Amino acid sequence: MKTQSSSQKAISFAVGITPGEVIDAYGVGKVVASGNPRFEKDDLVVGVITWGEYSVVKEGTILNKLDSMGFPETYHLGVLGFSGLSAYGGFFELCKPKKGEKVFVSAASGSVGNLVGQFAKLFGCYVVGCAGSKQKVELLKEKLGFDDAFNYKEETDLKSALKRYFPDGIDIYFDNVGAEMQEAAVANMNAFGRVAVCGVMSEYTDAGKRAAPDMLDVVYKRITIRGFLAADFMNVFADFISTTSDHLRSGNMQAVEYITPGLENIPSAFIGLFRGDNIGKTIVKIAEE
Amino acid sequence: MKTQSSSQKAISFAVGITPGEVIDAYGVGKVVASGNPRFEKDDLVVGVITWGEYSVVKEGTILNKLDSMGFPETYHLGVLGFSGLSAYGGFFELCKPKKGEKVFVSAASGSVGNLVGQFAKLFGCYVVGCAGSKQKVELLKEKLGFDDAFNYKEETDLKSALKRYFPDGIDIYFDNVGAEMQEAAVANMNAFGRVAVCGVMSEYTDAGKRAAPDMLDVVYKRITIRGFLAADFMNVFADFISTTSDHLRSGNMQAVEYITPGLENIPSAFIGLFRGDNIGKTIVKIAEE
Repeated sequence: MKTQSSSQKAISFAVGITPGEVIDAYGVGKVVASGNPRFEKDDLVVGVITWGEYSVVKEGTILNKLDSMGFPETYHLGVLGFSGLSAYGGFFELCKPKKGEKVFVSAASGSVGNLVGQFAKLFGCYVVGCAGSKQKVELLKEKLGFDDAFNYKEETDLKSALKRYFPDGIDIYFDNVGAEMQEAAVANMNAFGRVAVCGVMSEYTDAGKRAAPDMLDVVYKRITIRGFLAADFMNVFADFISTTSDHLRSGNMQAVEYITPGLENIPSAFIGLFRGDNIGKTIVKIAEE
Repeated sequence: MKTQSSSQKAISFAVGITPGEVIDAYGVGKVVASGNPRFEKDDLVVGVITWGEYSVVKEGTILNKLDSMGFPETYHLGVLGFSGLSAYGGFFELCKPKKGEKVFVSAASGSVGNLVGQFAKLFGCYVVGCAGSKQKVELLKEKLGFDDAFNYKEETDLKSALKRYFPDGIDIYFDNVGAEMQEAAVANMNAFGRVAVCGVMSEYTDAGKRAAPDMLDVVYKRITIRGFLAADFMNVFADFISTTSDHLRSGNMQAVEYITPGLENIPSAFIGLFRGDNIGKTIVKIAEE
């Protein structure tokens, strides 16, 4: 099966990778031969595929036929895949936003963050994102419709920075990074504020770099901090696909992709995720159609 | 109005107390004179009353007539008051327990903790509490029906201690202390675990002593950490009173009170809360009926 793969929120980063070991990724591929009556030659499929030009997918692996619905296949790994579902489910199901609420997104140009911001804006929230470069900040403000955005690397005091961007407080914080940013967001949160913890970039690369939000704020402002995985939202998958594909077709939403060609570039693309190289969804394209 | 007062979860601890200043508390009293048609002489009342032998309660202050329902007046400050409502609302409304779930309570001999444990046991959960003395631990195990209890001061590694008491993991952690205990509880939590943050004893006395739970656990185990105040549960107040008074009358629940007599002992009783002197609800009795 020919594949293009994408790394998912993967705890496997924490374990060592042994040369020659088979590494799974979530990818799109085309069937070249099938011993399973569910699949025929030339079917497009999406699911858990090992990283490689050709993969043998065993019985019991998550794999489904893919209807591309006229979108590029890569969309089904990002905006219409688990990144999109994380953003949609995490924002709508977990944060239960109200129109006009103030939303802060960290790693806002990342695969999930950029979609949270776009969903939140289309829903009628006020949205500010942070990212790690001037180029990313410009993308958020100029192409993706964020109300405002800032480069966290230029801020010496995150708590004051958020106070500046949210003079009336934060209602929802979509957290992709953890650590000091979460602490600063909690400190700036309104009563009944919600923190959806989607990713913990700070801890992926340094286990000692933990968030220590002030629990007095959590109590007195009745804040909820909650973790989730995209798979928790399979019950809204159909709604998510329908809403998102409508937004994409009407041009109200943009798919932001960071495509690296070639099997040999998997390691650098993967490491790049933790260096902040990517803008949007990181995808390794192993073969053309 | 003659009063007996009780300190509530009070952020005012953080502000200095100026000699001569009027300090509010939540208390029970008897009306000696009234200019308000809602109250008559000799009515029992409960609400926000300044600490003192006699208080003038101004229009607009939270004050209600009290039907003692045959219970000692002090019960309406503890087990049938805001401590009870914190325990009942925090446990049932926020944690949404299922029978058989594993519940951990910190400061379990405190005013709220002891009631959470009792509610949880009566509901059908497995309950372990921690407290700071042998006497408190014995009370939990021998009088209040906890499945197990331990003295956290005798443990050098809280994470391992909780692993020992919860070999199958914790489903609900009712947190009255924050800091390392919260970190250890989160580390031992099962998928979809819930942390109800009721109090933050560690931070009341040392603002730098914050909890830094591992957000990777929060994400991958979909943990919810949520703060609350008793006042959030006024919608279940009637249920709470009815359930709790039934349990008290049948002898299934115990009211644990730590009563200090005399106006002059208010400061020491208050400070004692932060030293762990009290077992159960701290009440200062200023006048007898």
